[in-house]
Amino acid sequence: MKPVRIFTTGGTMDKVHDWRRETIAFAGAGRSQVPDILQQSRCYEHEVEQLFQIDSLEMTDAYRNIICERIGKAEEEGVVVTHGTSTMAETARYLAKCGLGKTVVLTGAMRPHALFVSDASFNLGGAIIAAQTLPPGVYGVMNGGIFEAQELKKNERLGRFDV
Amino acid sequence: MKPVRIFTTGGTMDKVHDWRRETIAFAGAGRSQVPDILQQSRCYEHEVEQLFQIDSLEMTDAYRNIICERIGKAEEEGVVVTHGTSTMAETARYLAKCGLGKTVVLTGAMRPHALFVSDASFNLGGAIIAAQTLPPGVYGVMNGGIFEAQELKKNERLGRFDV
Amino acid sequence: MKPVRIFTTGGTMDKVHDWRRETIAFAGAGRSQVPDILQQSRCYEHEVEQLFQIDSLEMTDAYRNIICERIGKAEEEGVVVTHGTSTMAETARYLAKCGLGKTVVLTGAMRPHALFVSDASFNLGGAIIAAQTLPPGVYGVMNGGIFEAQELKKNERLGRFDV
Amino acid sequence: MKPVRIFTTGGTMDKVHDWRRETIAFAGAGRSQVPDILQQSRCYEHEVEQLFQIDSLEMTDAYRNIICERIGKAEEEGVVVTHGTSTMAETARYLAKCGLGKTVVLTGAMRPHALFVSDASFNLGGAIIAAQTLPPGVYGVMNGGIFEAQELKKNERLGRFDV
Repeated sequence: MKPVRIFTTGGTMDKVHDWRRETIAFAGAGRSQVPDILQQSRCYEHEVEQLFQIDSLEMTDAYRNIICERIGKAEEEGVVVTHGTSTMAETARYLAKCGLGKTVVLTGAMRPHALFVSDASFNLGGAIIAAQTLPPGVYGVMNGGIFEAQELKKNERLGRFDV
Repeated sequence: MKPVRIFTTGGTMDKVHDWRRETIAFAGAGRSQVPDILQQSRCYEHEVEQLFQIDSLEMTDAYRNIICERIGKAEEEGVVVTHGTSTMAETARYLAKCGLGKTVVLTGAMRPHALFVSDASFNLGGAIIAAQTLPPGVYGVMNGGIFEAQELKKNERLGRFDV
Repeated sequence: MKPVRIFTTGGTMDKVHDWRRETIAFAGAGRSQVPDILQQSRCYEHEVEQLFQIDSLEMTDAYRNIICERIGKAEEEGVVVTHGTSTMAETARYLAKCGLGKTVVLTGAMRPHALFVSDASFNLGGAIIAAQTLPPGVYGVMNGGIFEAQELKKNERLGRFDV
Repeated sequence: MKPVRIFTTGGTMDKVHDWRRETIAFAGAGRSQVPDILQQSRCYEHEVEQLFQIDSLEMTDAYRNIICERIGKAEEEGVVVTHGTSTMAETARYLAKCGLGKTVVLTGAMRPHALFVSDASFNLGGAIIAAQTLPPGVYGVMNGGIFEAQELKKNERLGRFDV
């Protein structure tokens, strides 16, 4: 097994039910759900590093630059970045220009992991495998598909990624 | 996206709660949970073919021979086989001797998908990506790891696969 | 078993995850979750009548008047009204003034039934029993407690009802 | 709110998934699920006392005698006993002969609370209300119905209680 580093940035995957505001939001404590997904799947070899807890609509190049730097400093050759779906494509193209020389895989979810019926585990499970098997480059892994950074595009109407 | 064919054979992934016998068992109608996992994850491009609904302790070479034949006849270059964990390693080694020339990925779960908290989605999501990215050969994808048929081994004490 | 009529008016109990708006909202089809709760609990004797699918902040006396009329026309002596928690107390006091001569029990939830971890079943199960056992009057049944219309009061800070 | 004492004796309500034996069983630590149900429903006023963690097929008069004694010593006038469904009727009739002078309500579940889709919350929520509203006597509260000890009878074919 090749060790993978998983950077979490927030997005729907990390959100929970907020009964006070009756909506879906980041938990007060700001803890990512990714360690829970890994534990539920008995996946213990890969490191998780929580970077942010932000909605992908709040993602800016300043945040992207931090992601870039942290990927550069990671010892692992394969990296997963969890990210909201709305601007995942923009971040992928930003990271593709960073010249990282690593396998970087973005993934996310349309339904929070905390709601029990979710695409979060499926997508994260795929991204972790992609980070071990794809050649260096930047990719999105969503809905059982692999997309290169340039072709990554959310289908807003269907809530998924397709070509 | 490379199309993958998913053969289901049963195993824990497919089981449900049986209130009459108060246990975990295959549903009366014998329907696999795999199409539900794919729908929940909005993964529509890959074909599912239900072969059996058996516990992997019931898996014999007669069944394995059928799996072999069906993989041989599939148009896809990448194939996923869902399987119980107890004899997944034996089936992997049997299929490795079939000389299929395809990428065959076995996967399964320790907890049924129908129980909501499960490793089924994570493992299946990983296997579908592995079937698109690994070179021809037979592999197991479990717990975020990729194992060649020869090294695949269930850690019965921990309920997972590790090297 | 005394037959109870259950009128649904919406509220959090009925809401589902809305991935397009990334929030908790009524389903497009506007179907109440109450029949699902009853089926899950194998409770088949009581009739369900869906009146509205509204947030309790939208509840007005015009709506309350309709509830009143429908309760008056019901054949059953015991009635449950599912309702959002924010204005449940106001509706209880409105119904108390209607002089219905029946046992009317309001109930609701702080977390949607569709999120799997919810107080909806517990509260509805209690309300259905209360409607069979309490003398005529208007009550709220929430969090394992029984409250007369006049004393019903949501503790907004704790998200529950207490005295 | 009248305080109710809840005695837990095990039964399906308390069981969890056991991946080693691939079945539904009591957790190793032997902890009841009832406190979790109450917390999920924000029901904090009633006391829980865990007596046993047994399948109701193992219930004997020796156990029933202990239940009797503990009910007798409780300060509360209303008592709930969680119990497996298979012999709930026998225990109800045993307790009815104890001359306790209290309101004793038995309840249980056909599907474990830990499986997320369950009748446990609904039944427990009803039992807690029944213990506050019914006159002294022994009852079963299941599936939205109230049954006196003498008429309590499980319909094994349908997995519910009806008259």
